[in-house]
Amino acid sequence: MDKNSINIKNISILGSTGSIGRQTLDVIRNNSGYFRVIGLSTNKNIDLLLEQIKEFRPKMVTIFDKDSYQKFLKYKKNQEFAELLDNIKILNGLDGLVEIAKSKEISILVTAVVGMIGLLPTIEAIKNSTTIALANKETLVTAGKIVMEQARKFKASIIPIDSEHSAIFQCLNGESGNKIDKILLTASGGPFRGKTTDELENVTKKDALNHPNWIMGQKITIDSSTLMNKGLEVIEAKWLFDVDPDDIIVHVHPQSIIHSMVQFKDTSVIAQLGCPDMRVPIQYALTYPKRVDNNYEKLDLFKISNLTFEKPDLNVFPCLKIAYDCLKHGGTDCTVMNAANEVLVEMFLDDLIKFYDIPKYIQLAIDKHEYIENPTLSEIIDTDKWTRDFINDYLKRKVN
Amino acid sequence: MDKNSINIKNISILGSTGSIGRQTLDVIRNNSGYFRVIGLSTNKNIDLLLEQIKEFRPKMVTIFDKDSYQKFLKYKKNQEFAELLDNIKILNGLDGLVEIAKSKEISILVTAVVGMIGLLPTIEAIKNSTTIALANKETLVTAGKIVMEQARKFKASIIPIDSEHSAIFQCLNGESGNKIDKILLTASGGPFRGKTTDELENVTKKDALNHPNWIMGQKITIDSSTLMNKGLEVIEAKWLFDVDPDDIIVHVHPQSIIHSMVQFKDTSVIAQLGCPDMRVPIQYALTYPKRVDNNYEKLDLFKISNLTFEKPDLNVFPCLKIAYDCLKHGGTDCTVMNAANEVLVEMFLDDLIKFYDIPKYIQLAIDKHEYIENPTLSEIIDTDKWTRDFINDYLKRKVN
Repeated sequence: MDKNSINIKNISILGSTGSIGRQTLDVIRNNSGYFRVIGLSTNKNIDLLLEQIKEFRPKMVTIFDKDSYQKFLKYKKNQEFAELLDNIKILNGLDGLVEIAKSKEISILVTAVVGMIGLLPTIEAIKNSTTIALANKETLVTAGKIVMEQARKFKASIIPIDSEHSAIFQCLNGESGNKIDKILLTASGGPFRGKTTDELENVTKKDALNHPNWIMGQKITIDSSTLMNKGLEVIEAKWLFDVDPDDIIVHVHPQSIIHSMVQFKDTSVIAQLGCPDMRVPIQYALTYPKRVDNNYEKLDLFKISNLTFEKPDLNVFPCLKIAYDCLKHGGTDCTVMNAANEVLVEMFLDDLIKFYDIPKYIQLAIDKHEYIENPTLSEIIDTDKWTRDFINDYLKRKVN
Repeated sequence: MDKNSINIKNISILGSTGSIGRQTLDVIRNNSGYFRVIGLSTNKNIDLLLEQIKEFRPKMVTIFDKDSYQKFLKYKKNQEFAELLDNIKILNGLDGLVEIAKSKEISILVTAVVGMIGLLPTIEAIKNSTTIALANKETLVTAGKIVMEQARKFKASIIPIDSEHSAIFQCLNGESGNKIDKILLTASGGPFRGKTTDELENVTKKDALNHPNWIMGQKITIDSSTLMNKGLEVIEAKWLFDVDPDDIIVHVHPQSIIHSMVQFKDTSVIAQLGCPDMRVPIQYALTYPKRVDNNYEKLDLFKISNLTFEKPDLNVFPCLKIAYDCLKHGGTDCTVMNAANEVLVEMFLDDLIKFYDIPKYIQLAIDKHEYIENPTLSEIIDTDKWTRDFINDYLKRKVN
């Protein structure tokens, strides 16, 4: 990186021990001297957090999980770590995440936690006009309308980290004033592309975790196998880029080379391509609008030689259809869908339910919930909680 | 098009009866009320020029060919056309092209003539800071260094119309300050993709004119069959985008859907895609930076389903290698290459020489010419003339 071209940026990462968090720190490591890490957080992975503290010397950390937090506090009594930890604020729970997020010292907040807990900290950072590098899908999926309203109000930039939305964001460079005709959202198709419903009836988590192209966390990898991941991305794209659901067209593109495209009114399509490496969109979010040298693998189209495209099969992957339906119906539908999916994916990972139970019970929760057309933030949080309880109770009752 | 968003632009078209010229008028027709045609020109096609005058009512026209000009003047005595033509300046030759080009009334000059004659008028327009919508390859191929220096000096924008360069130009939107790592220049491969040198030894002009994807003029279609077209584009790309020859990588992409790509330093690749329709880059050049609605065919990747890429075979297509060599060697090499190619393609179209005589005699002319490292404009014009005479004399002598 050119030393003269970028000021040092203060960054905090919510979810620094997860897949995106670790890769974000890798990007920061590769651009040493250009970013200062202010805050980090983990759920339970306190050993890795300790390593990260040693390397990046943040001012504050949050351990979300209560037991892990208590365990971590004991490190302070260990002479080896005492000096290291004495000058750090050690926080916990959602309050801890919010405290990191709302620090006025930071210019970029990387929201890389998984699930609904990313929502409140993100909104607090937006209120400070802090730039959000957003990897947490649920923030926009459950409360996209409110989040985007707040971002506009406080002039906070939201730069997506997801490879697809980063691609769209990049395709829109210099196009202000030119209307989007369609977003062509690419999808690898996941490990079950080309399968039939019969074949997927009894698949295991091991099958589902075997993603062909991307190295990602467990939750997102299961979402990728059901195409719920793509459904969440359709919803995010709607909020980020203000496009009608029917103008977001999912293209199954198994090579994951074209990360997404934008078709403009003049029929021109702009695409962003590259090897599947999350560090590229992460780096872009941190250095935007500059593009910075790195040593990541470069695209070799002679080697790949062949890019293919096909329509997703909504019968085999009903989660994608549910997502479109929820987005079109609006209100609290997406919140319920997202919460139910989170609980059900966890159950699937615990071998408690089968593959097609995921869409089945998501739909049930949507049908059973009390629909609110224009929910407030607290109504969204209540709806989320109601959904989790509903799924847990319903399936517990079913088992007993 | 939104009536409030674009002021009426005055446009002249050099070469309005050729393929690009006609399509430019089609774009203007489709955006009626937003462009005013000031000047038109033809070489010999005076009947079509008359039709264009009737429809677009320019203030001046040029008939390049002397006999056609004299013939056209007689139309003024025909009562049917007298009124139409009385208020129009009717010019001829290179002077006529220059007079149209240097009119201060125009804001865009579309340079769509074929061959070396586009150079001087383009430079005259640049001196008025007129925007150049450039379809004439030879302008940059023979005098790229001088033309770009003049464009910088007079702050004239040069917007490429070629689909490949328009694609690159579009990929660079909003990327100012971000260095290009590589240009991935796509090529259909022409009608002879996959053939061997033996198979091409005796091909006819009919075979060569049978281009798979694009409808273009004869000269450019032959250039496409030898890949000289791609060689000319490599040279143009170097001048337009200031990239090292070795960083311009030709990708044979038979579907002609990706019109070219730019790889940046962060490994991200931005591409422009669409159905092969020259009206899209023409319209973009005329409406830039705005993108304007049209009814042209939209890309359907589900229908195409498969995009492929391969390396060009420089043994089978030596013209492409010659172009790289000339570009690297610089000076007057590209001028000689271009002039020799123009003469030789015409001879091939007249069934006077064989397919591989084109690269053979281009190379001969390069080897025989008096190399000038930093030629002036008049030295370039002299070198061009020397080359044409050399090829004509040499081949006449050979026949006799």
